Amino acid sequence: MSVHNYQGKRYQKGKSELRFDALTMEEPLQIDVNGKPFTLTMRTPGDDRALVRGLLHSEGVIKSPEFNPELIFVNENKEGILTQIALEIPTKELGDGYSNSRNLLSVASCGICGKTSLEEIGFMDACLDSKEKFDLELLEPAFLQMQNVQDAFRKSGGSHAAAAFDWDGVLLCYAEDIGRHNAVDKIIGKLILEEKYKKAALLTVSGRISYEIVVKSFKGRVPILAAVSAPSSLAVDYAKELGLTLFAFCRGDRATCYAHPERINENRSLNNQVS
Amino acid sequence: MSVHNYQGKRYQKGKSELRFDALTMEEPLQIDVNGKPFTLTMRTPGDDRALVRGLLHSEGVIKSPEFNPELIFVNENKEGILTQIALEIPTKELGDGYSNSRNLLSVASCGICGKTSLEEIGFMDACLDSKEKFDLELLEPAFLQMQNVQDAFRKSGGSHAAAAFDWDGVLLCYAEDIGRHNAVDKIIGKLILEEKYKKAALLTVSGRISYEIVVKSFKGRVPILAAVSAPSSLAVDYAKELGLTLFAFCRGDRATCYAHPERINENRSLNNQVS
Repeated sequence: MSVHNYQGKRYQKGKSELRFDALTMEEPLQIDVNGKPFTLTMRTPGDDRALVRGLLHSEGVIKSPEFNPELIFVNENKEGILTQIALEIPTKELGDGYSNSRNLLSVASCGICGKTSLEEIGFMDACLDSKEKFDLELLEPAFLQMQNVQDAFRKSGGSHAAAAFDWDGVLLCYAEDIGRHNAVDKIIGKLILEEKYKKAALLTVSGRISYEIVVKSFKGRVPILAAVSAPSSLAVDYAKELGLTLFAFCRGDRATCYAHPERINENRSLNNQVS
Repeated sequence: MSVHNYQGKRYQKGKSELRFDALTMEEPLQIDVNGKPFTLTMRTPGDDRALVRGLLHSEGVIKSPEFNPELIFVNENKEGILTQIALEIPTKELGDGYSNSRNLLSVASCGICGKTSLEEIGFMDACLDSKEKFDLELLEPAFLQMQNVQDAFRKSGGSHAAAAFDWDGVLLCYAEDIGRHNAVDKIIGKLILEEKYKKAALLTVSGRISYEIVVKSFKGRVPILAAVSAPSSLAVDYAKELGLTLFAFCRGDRATCYAHPERINENRSLNNQVS
């Protein structure tokens, strides 16, 4: 249950084909400690007992590795994936990490778990109302431009990059960071600070795409999101729901679209030269 | 200022050499809103104004993209890297994300920013007291074993793996997850649940190493941490401080040790066969 098949439209050398790709599952798990929500973590289902026990150890919530509380499976979704797990920890076994508990709301406010509706959290304010189309052939040069300015990555091999482009494929801004989310936040910040907000058509990222990156792109009003690597299952679900065009596995003249390909102008091919 | 040079000991084909590698910087930045700590984020220094503005947009703390508050640089460390930034947001500009603010303590409790000492947060309870040595030649087979069980990755290309091995290089447990931290938490959880705690010598991870992975390995009492990809600057700093042996860029017969190589028995080479 760690992967799920999604239909994608794969473009290569000016042709496209529909195909199914296995994407890694990303699903929320709420952990309740002593009757109260403690945290909500996005994870790939499987080994859930180990995840909860390890997280409570790493976060210093359970002091002793010898103490192993019973884990109660409280809820699962209609696909049988666990969504809520609860446990009781006696006061003498509680570590300092318990009082430092993460704020559940900050995670749940993105609408995951169906706790808050999209309307409630203002998603609708940010709807992607553009009717413009993006030329498919601009995708590969956009990634090349991003790679050309990946200075930190060239030196260290350890950083993520993100970049924004307008509807003509012109680079608007670029950022690098050790964290993929930070790199995207830097881009959204630059679009706002440099008065380019709503001018960006495409957000490229060097790594993978989680649901959170989709939400950031959506809130930043960038309607097309494209990554070098794989998207998560939830990233594709969110992109479909939010009307965001999502590309992944963008490598050379290849790219696969998992959501809303109607924003793409395919008439001009991704790469006219057959090698 | 996005990379920093660190000395590493690089092993290949039974030989080793000291070298300097550029590693991506990972440093904490505290963001104060209206006089109170709002969040603490680990980031690569640079574009800090854009990062803060984008994060406050993505998190729904500032409602309108037209409102751009003045950002005040409050503190920097002795290397001139910004550590604290403050801004004022009038009530009418504050979004729902403000009341859902992340808990600063949960991040700061790891001792970053020097706010809490290692002793205070119980690090010393978890000291790595093992005097055993690990044979260098067991490293490559360990990664091969991890790759052999990377089921989700083979299918999707979008998940992280982690595995634990004992002092003889025997696989103790293995986990995959879309999140690198989750994969490690699953391993620590399995070690605890399967009564293998303190028996693990080596934790292998498929991706990069942040300071948080180092802390998780340390708290889980696994003294040697090795990754396929790059470590962050802070990961190396923490490993040195905590007495953890840290390997990165473990690919085939190559591996570079950035902290505490004294736990490694080099007499037997990583790969005796010269190709």
